[in-house]
Amino acid sequence: MLNWLILLTPAVLYLHFTHYENQTVIFVLACAAIIPLAGWLGHATEHLAAKTNESIGGLLNATFGNAAELIIAISAMRAGLFDVVKASLTGSIIGNLLLVLGASILAGGLKYKEQQFSAQAARAQTTLLTIASISLVLPAAFHYLAGNTPGSVELERDLSLEFSIVLLVIYGLSLLFSLKTHKHFFTSVVEPEEAGHGWSLMKSLGILGAATTAIAVVSEILVHNVQSAADSFGMSSVFVGVIIVAIVGNAAEHSTAILVARKNRMDLSLSIAIGSSLQIAIFVGPLLVVLSYFIGPRPMDLVFTMAEVLAVVVSVFITGQVADDGESHWMEGVQLLGVYIMLGIIFFFLPATATQH
Amino acid sequence: MLNWLILLTPAVLYLHFTHYENQTVIFVLACAAIIPLAGWLGHATEHLAAKTNESIGGLLNATFGNAAELIIAISAMRAGLFDVVKASLTGSIIGNLLLVLGASILAGGLKYKEQQFSAQAARAQTTLLTIASISLVLPAAFHYLAGNTPGSVELERDLSLEFSIVLLVIYGLSLLFSLKTHKHFFTSVVEPEEAGHGWSLMKSLGILGAATTAIAVVSEILVHNVQSAADSFGMSSVFVGVIIVAIVGNAAEHSTAILVARKNRMDLSLSIAIGSSLQIAIFVGPLLVVLSYFIGPRPMDLVFTMAEVLAVVVSVFITGQVADDGESHWMEGVQLLGVYIMLGIIFFFLPATATQH
Amino acid sequence: MLNWLILLTPAVLYLHFTHYENQTVIFVLACAAIIPLAGWLGHATEHLAAKTNESIGGLLNATFGNAAELIIAISAMRAGLFDVVKASLTGSIIGNLLLVLGASILAGGLKYKEQQFSAQAARAQTTLLTIASISLVLPAAFHYLAGNTPGSVELERDLSLEFSIVLLVIYGLSLLFSLKTHKHFFTSVVEPEEAGHGWSLMKSLGILGAATTAIAVVSEILVHNVQSAADSFGMSSVFVGVIIVAIVGNAAEHSTAILVARKNRMDLSLSIAIGSSLQIAIFVGPLLVVLSYFIGPRPMDLVFTMAEVLAVVVSVFITGQVADDGESHWMEGVQLLGVYIMLGIIFFFLPATATQH
Repeated sequence: MLNWLILLTPAVLYLHFTHYENQTVIFVLACAAIIPLAGWLGHATEHLAAKTNESIGGLLNATFGNAAELIIAISAMRAGLFDVVKASLTGSIIGNLLLVLGASILAGGLKYKEQQFSAQAARAQTTLLTIASISLVLPAAFHYLAGNTPGSVELERDLSLEFSIVLLVIYGLSLLFSLKTHKHFFTSVVEPEEAGHGWSLMKSLGILGAATTAIAVVSEILVHNVQSAADSFGMSSVFVGVIIVAIVGNAAEHSTAILVARKNRMDLSLSIAIGSSLQIAIFVGPLLVVLSYFIGPRPMDLVFTMAEVLAVVVSVFITGQVADDGESHWMEGVQLLGVYIMLGIIFFFLPATATQH
Repeated sequence: MLNWLILLTPAVLYLHFTHYENQTVIFVLACAAIIPLAGWLGHATEHLAAKTNESIGGLLNATFGNAAELIIAISAMRAGLFDVVKASLTGSIIGNLLLVLGASILAGGLKYKEQQFSAQAARAQTTLLTIASISLVLPAAFHYLAGNTPGSVELERDLSLEFSIVLLVIYGLSLLFSLKTHKHFFTSVVEPEEAGHGWSLMKSLGILGAATTAIAVVSEILVHNVQSAADSFGMSSVFVGVIIVAIVGNAAEHSTAILVARKNRMDLSLSIAIGSSLQIAIFVGPLLVVLSYFIGPRPMDLVFTMAEVLAVVVSVFITGQVADDGESHWMEGVQLLGVYIMLGIIFFFLPATATQH
Repeated sequence: MLNWLILLTPAVLYLHFTHYENQTVIFVLACAAIIPLAGWLGHATEHLAAKTNESIGGLLNATFGNAAELIIAISAMRAGLFDVVKASLTGSIIGNLLLVLGASILAGGLKYKEQQFSAQAARAQTTLLTIASISLVLPAAFHYLAGNTPGSVELERDLSLEFSIVLLVIYGLSLLFSLKTHKHFFTSVVEPEEAGHGWSLMKSLGILGAATTAIAVVSEILVHNVQSAADSFGMSSVFVGVIIVAIVGNAAEHSTAILVARKNRMDLSLSIAIGSSLQIAIFVGPLLVVLSYFIGPRPMDLVFTMAEVLAVVVSVFITGQVADDGESHWMEGVQLLGVYIMLGIIFFFLPATATQH
């Protein structure tokens, strides 16, 4: 029904490349354009998951969903805007855990009194989330403890590179774990409500690819225009980086995770929301650090601001508490969303000077 | 048997209003006067819970038990003594979690080898406790990060007001959750040991109300005289605020929670101890912030001292670890009490200068 | 097969007492000498555990394994090298939780897809670990908050002594809990793979004692020579204290915990790794504080550096997440080892100035 909104994508492209003056208008149109694209991405993922399993389906959705973030982050990294990169990584991590997962659990919980999922799969993922937060806490603590000693900038770069390699190895092993040695953990415990009439593998992959590409392009336009939109709405650039960009960048995960939660497929829903966060934290972030040595203006480090580290720690902690018992209900969705709103308020009020190192 | 102590209540009132000089004597008598009142409150709650369920019984006890704290806190808030308000809120949160719950688990555990309770109910409450600590951590972190920028006082007030509204909404929804949509979580898994001969609903409510009123009045007198008593015992005002006032203010919860733990009704015991903490953290505190705009000398914020925030975080963390498995034994009581003693030592030694922002 | 390495022990003693010049050679030989000793210690523990139960076996191994640390720590404490003592305690705590437990879970997990153990026993121990971290967090926070006020050194000593007494009481009660009132928690849920041909109690105890003594002596020689070895390998003294000394000092726990994990006796494995950490944190550390009043040059406090406290908190948190579900698989081993590597990197890079208070 909303499929005519798909026409907004060419419209946004046209306005962007003809340098239409009112950037706020482009921003709003780009937001609307993403809705049907995210919908198509969600449907394609769901059909793929039906052909494979929750784990692969979730991984595919997270990967395609994060393609937009990766594209945006690489272009910001090449421009040396490391603070923007880190803000958008942070926003994506907390957005997936609190907003996407919270909205999914709430949406599912309003339909089903209690929803079950594999506690083993959830725990395997939340433990990885803990590692992700440790990998942000330790460099920030190092910066706090050793930041004023001579040569600390170089030390922090070396340390960040080594951390990144450790994280990439752990990420690789986690795929081996979830896709091969322990894939039975990730098999849904709940029979899907409806099997779907079934797209072919090729059709699913084709639509997945096309929707992802379109989302990436529209996202990039959106980010280009987000600053002027933010100015006209009176928001700071920190808030925009951590909250607004992340909401838009996660539209794909958001839409699919809610869709499947409403069908009582919580394993897939968690796999998307937590998996996407994880991928950003222990794959995309470390990859950007490594890439910065090759295609960046200078090496990037993993030293996030105190506010960013705190936001991730808080999000990871409450996600673990909510997910580790293998059961969800609407109140847990409210709780995650409540924390997201509180973090949003903090980032909204935080003065720009307080977000530097 | 201790019911003749009830005569102490008029005695305390008499001494107070005739301005008896030795305040330490009034303090000690007021402490003793609270014992039988708390006992009556406990019995009334238990009879009420027998007529309703553990969740409502616990909520009623927590609410009536917190009435005293609320009355004390409002009068301190109107006097602009925001530090005293925050110290007493902190003390009440950690006192309920560590002292009341710890003593209940220990008392119950000395009688029963293992005691079961609903893990689902406990987890729903400990997740709310996590939100409560996040709501204290974030403003304190904001203060630390942005406290020296111009206009930060106003920012902190705005932020605190918004946080308070979020918390009040969450508290309201949590009541909806525990009393309506998921009340089956909170139904006791253990048959009560003895049914009790049963008071009528009116008798229970009447005694509940009368005991609460008397406790509130005696508590207020007690707090008025606690400073001079503290001086004569050589304790700092921080210690008095966080530890002594809280112990006395929580007498009602304390007495009932232990009483029912000895009867193997751990669901009710946890519901009282954790519920009372929760109510202070996400209802009483936020309510005071909102009220301060109407009846306070100036708006109050939610920025607690580092020591207070740390105390709450530590208490919430270990409570979650103890409660989330739905089973308790005496050693867990020892552990909670051990943490309480350590926090007590810290607050006892902490110099007054270190407790300011 | 490696038993001829036992001949290295007299060789190391000979070189040490004849003041052989190349200390790096002594260091490497001492490392090699510990391997067969640790092996004998492991076998003896295992035979003892077969005669008693997992809990007593683990306690014996932890106690004998920690004898070396205690001996080293007492001699450093008597020399007034409190920073060395604290570094070695920290290293032992995190080494047991992350390296020993991580390697055990990985080694066991490569053989068995999933391994079960008593979640109740694990939780009882991880809650004690939480108390151990709280007992390090609070004095460090006190130091941060009150460190510049007059008389704070004395306050910190008093506070540390009181904390130590609280911890020693909790440790004593935890033995009562695990060995007497709730020993059924600690009975293995998994039938040992092979019963062993069985040593007599006397033979087991005799070998346990002899191996421990030899390890203690070789460890002490090793520590004496570790600094010059570290210099020749280019490592800082913080790194040596926290990482290298701990790895060597924990050789006994390490070897036994892995050995039994390969035999699917995860209860014993966890009991050794976590129990050893616990014993260091809430028995050896506090005992050293108390002893410092009698045999130290001046009273020692419990104020650890920020880096040390953070390392312990992080280790305890992820250990809890891994152990609390009563089930392990290889990826959890990888995760613990990953965190250990990250902490190792931090301590390797941390400048000496940043590790002071």
